[in-house]
Amino acid sequence: MAQKTQSPIRVGLLGAGTVGSQTARLIVEQREDLARRIGRDIELVGVACLNPDEVDLPWIDRGLLTTDTAGLCTRADIVIELIGGIEPARTFVLKAIDSGASVVTANKALLAKHGPEIYRAAEKRGVDVYFEAAVGGAIPIVRPLRESLVGDSVTSMLGIVNGTTNYILDEMTTKGLDFGIALKDAQDRGYAEADPTGDVEGLDAANKAAIMATLGFHTPVSIDDVTVEGITAITADDIAAATAEHKVVKLLAVVENGEDGVSARVYPALIGEDHPLASVHGSFNAVFVHAEAADDLMFYGRGAGGAPTASAVVGDVVTEARHIAQGCTGPAISLYRTLPMAPLEASRAVFAVRFLIHDKPGVLAVIAQTFADAGISINGVNQDLKPTLHDPGYSGEIQQLRLVTHRCDEVTLRRAVKLVCGLDGVTGTPSILRVIG
Amino acid sequence: MAQKTQSPIRVGLLGAGTVGSQTARLIVEQREDLARRIGRDIELVGVACLNPDEVDLPWIDRGLLTTDTAGLCTRADIVIELIGGIEPARTFVLKAIDSGASVVTANKALLAKHGPEIYRAAEKRGVDVYFEAAVGGAIPIVRPLRESLVGDSVTSMLGIVNGTTNYILDEMTTKGLDFGIALKDAQDRGYAEADPTGDVEGLDAANKAAIMATLGFHTPVSIDDVTVEGITAITADDIAAATAEHKVVKLLAVVENGEDGVSARVYPALIGEDHPLASVHGSFNAVFVHAEAADDLMFYGRGAGGAPTASAVVGDVVTEARHIAQGCTGPAISLYRTLPMAPLEASRAVFAVRFLIHDKPGVLAVIAQTFADAGISINGVNQDLKPTLHDPGYSGEIQQLRLVTHRCDEVTLRRAVKLVCGLDGVTGTPSILRVIG
Repeated sequence: MAQKTQSPIRVGLLGAGTVGSQTARLIVEQREDLARRIGRDIELVGVACLNPDEVDLPWIDRGLLTTDTAGLCTRADIVIELIGGIEPARTFVLKAIDSGASVVTANKALLAKHGPEIYRAAEKRGVDVYFEAAVGGAIPIVRPLRESLVGDSVTSMLGIVNGTTNYILDEMTTKGLDFGIALKDAQDRGYAEADPTGDVEGLDAANKAAIMATLGFHTPVSIDDVTVEGITAITADDIAAATAEHKVVKLLAVVENGEDGVSARVYPALIGEDHPLASVHGSFNAVFVHAEAADDLMFYGRGAGGAPTASAVVGDVVTEARHIAQGCTGPAISLYRTLPMAPLEASRAVFAVRFLIHDKPGVLAVIAQTFADAGISINGVNQDLKPTLHDPGYSGEIQQLRLVTHRCDEVTLRRAVKLVCGLDGVTGTPSILRVIG
Repeated sequence: MAQKTQSPIRVGLLGAGTVGSQTARLIVEQREDLARRIGRDIELVGVACLNPDEVDLPWIDRGLLTTDTAGLCTRADIVIELIGGIEPARTFVLKAIDSGASVVTANKALLAKHGPEIYRAAEKRGVDVYFEAAVGGAIPIVRPLRESLVGDSVTSMLGIVNGTTNYILDEMTTKGLDFGIALKDAQDRGYAEADPTGDVEGLDAANKAAIMATLGFHTPVSIDDVTVEGITAITADDIAAATAEHKVVKLLAVVENGEDGVSARVYPALIGEDHPLASVHGSFNAVFVHAEAADDLMFYGRGAGGAPTASAVVGDVVTEARHIAQGCTGPAISLYRTLPMAPLEASRAVFAVRFLIHDKPGVLAVIAQTFADAGISINGVNQDLKPTLHDPGYSGEIQQLRLVTHRCDEVTLRRAVKLVCGLDGVTGTPSILRVIG
């Protein structure tokens, strides 16, 4: 099937890091197989990097290394952007499109901020933009949303889409570690970056939430539309309390298309241990999708890592190469709707809130009254001693007070939590977990 | 984006059963959305059925019902084949292709037997054949294999791809039922057919195994290449013994591309309860995929049912309609390899075998000697009384003897089991379970 008489499809790679390196390996090592699957040969024509001397890519001819990124964008049929971040990635991607090249990218930050601009530029120029690796690493989730589920109506998605936080929460669960210690441990093992903010504050997951909502609901959703909470306030005790109730704590990216509009959120949540997402451990990712006709679906796999991410990247390269060989393009990212974002007031859930309180009479009463005044009814209360904790301004012991609410709106809940935190006898940082299912 | 000035893409539906009915509903109800996603209107131009008077399709104009199936095949741009079985489905599918129509089918039996003939006919005629619903119902697994993973090397797949047997095994597990009673219960509830052979003997799963192997390994694998064992010999005691060891019994379709060639098997297996497949319950399906670069992936969802299956069917219709609107086709099913099937002798595994034996001296010794003579070493033995069981020709009590082997080849194992079953003091039907992981 490989038509070797035609010139090979030229592939330019921007970025020679972990993913770039594995991408180059797959393209070079599997060239014969890929040619058979595409129906035409593909050739890696350049690898752009900042400093060729620092690049270790044993599987390619070193002559392919170049610092002329813009030049590579104009001499490739397919440009693979693995630079990451917004600029200069955005400029190079738009330059590639403008030159008539199709683009493969794993850049979630870029797509979450400028996706619609890029999709429209590609559609106008008649080229492809594929980005399977931008959500869930190796997991095929973008293509199923673009193609498999287009005959259906996706109503919600819950994703464990950040491996670092999932690893940290797992360590906290199995070893009883507090967040800070588990984070340090993850950093020591290379699972968390020196500056972990993007992961632990939920920003990485928020980028993916924006992309998931855009694809699933056919409407532009930007990172600026996503409400984000991270996992830094969660303690080992919070997790132990969850375990005792046969629940697990997971950081979820949740997107929904409801009556009040679209919502895109990242928050830590309690889910029952029989939920399929509960058994997603370590650096694995999974996206749980609900659609009107298909009902529940889940997609599971490695959310990061050089080779897994490269698998998704090269799958996209093959798809685009097939289109080039055929003289067509894949479906444009359909953004035919302009759905409103749901107001935060419309966000209703069951919440599990933990306060640290002084062990003295009347504190529980005044907290309960604060919730009652806010119109929030309480479904369950649990209070236990926290012997290891001390409040510098208070000589007594500290208790942990856990409240589970009935379904209530989030704005009211947060207002009540803030009032409680200002009360006499309440100390430390509260944790707020949504209860799913 | 919808270009209403062009004539609509004509869709013909063959079959008006549960899936056909839901497919018609989605196409009619979501016509506007589908047109926006395709970029061109689509129109249901006919529904072929044997007896229009018996068809209940409230969402379509009854004038669309026709008994002229062959005629419908020649006047549609896309033909959806939901007749099932080999003939006349094969004839109509080939007729549709010959007429220049693209085909969507959910027909696993047809593809497992005649897939390569159909794929080649479609490629030659320049039309699409899509069949997401043929494996795993609503679960996007065919498209990920055809497109997402084409940059990678798939090495193995383990699928729970038959909801009926999964439901029966679940009932046996949670309620302690024996196979016959659980089957009867499933039949009463409509989860198993009056003639359950195709499901419980593993034939339905075998069809899916053939399709999975063909797609994953880019080589033709037919239903005739698949070795099949069902679940009829499994008892409530076998499952209780598995539970005690934190394992579950699942009927798996297993395809592997190894050094000795390709294998495609269906068998009941013991898997650890922490394996992602272990939490796939009831009528849900899942396919666990291992690829060289992507590592482990799992795809989970509803394996059957009208609406879920229709979701996959209509997703395929949209993909083909986009291709027609663009004047191109999707990737042909690549069959560029001709890999040998691995001989049965190459199949090596750890086996858990259960015999029923008379409770008298010497039986264990002679069984152990039989295995030793065969060169199979035993990793674990467990024997317990089965008080409810009686052998008509023997007045004593019956014991259950469970052996777990070290890794050994299957041909030798089966020969030894057969020898043991012929021994004096051995009664009933043995169960053989493979131990995964």
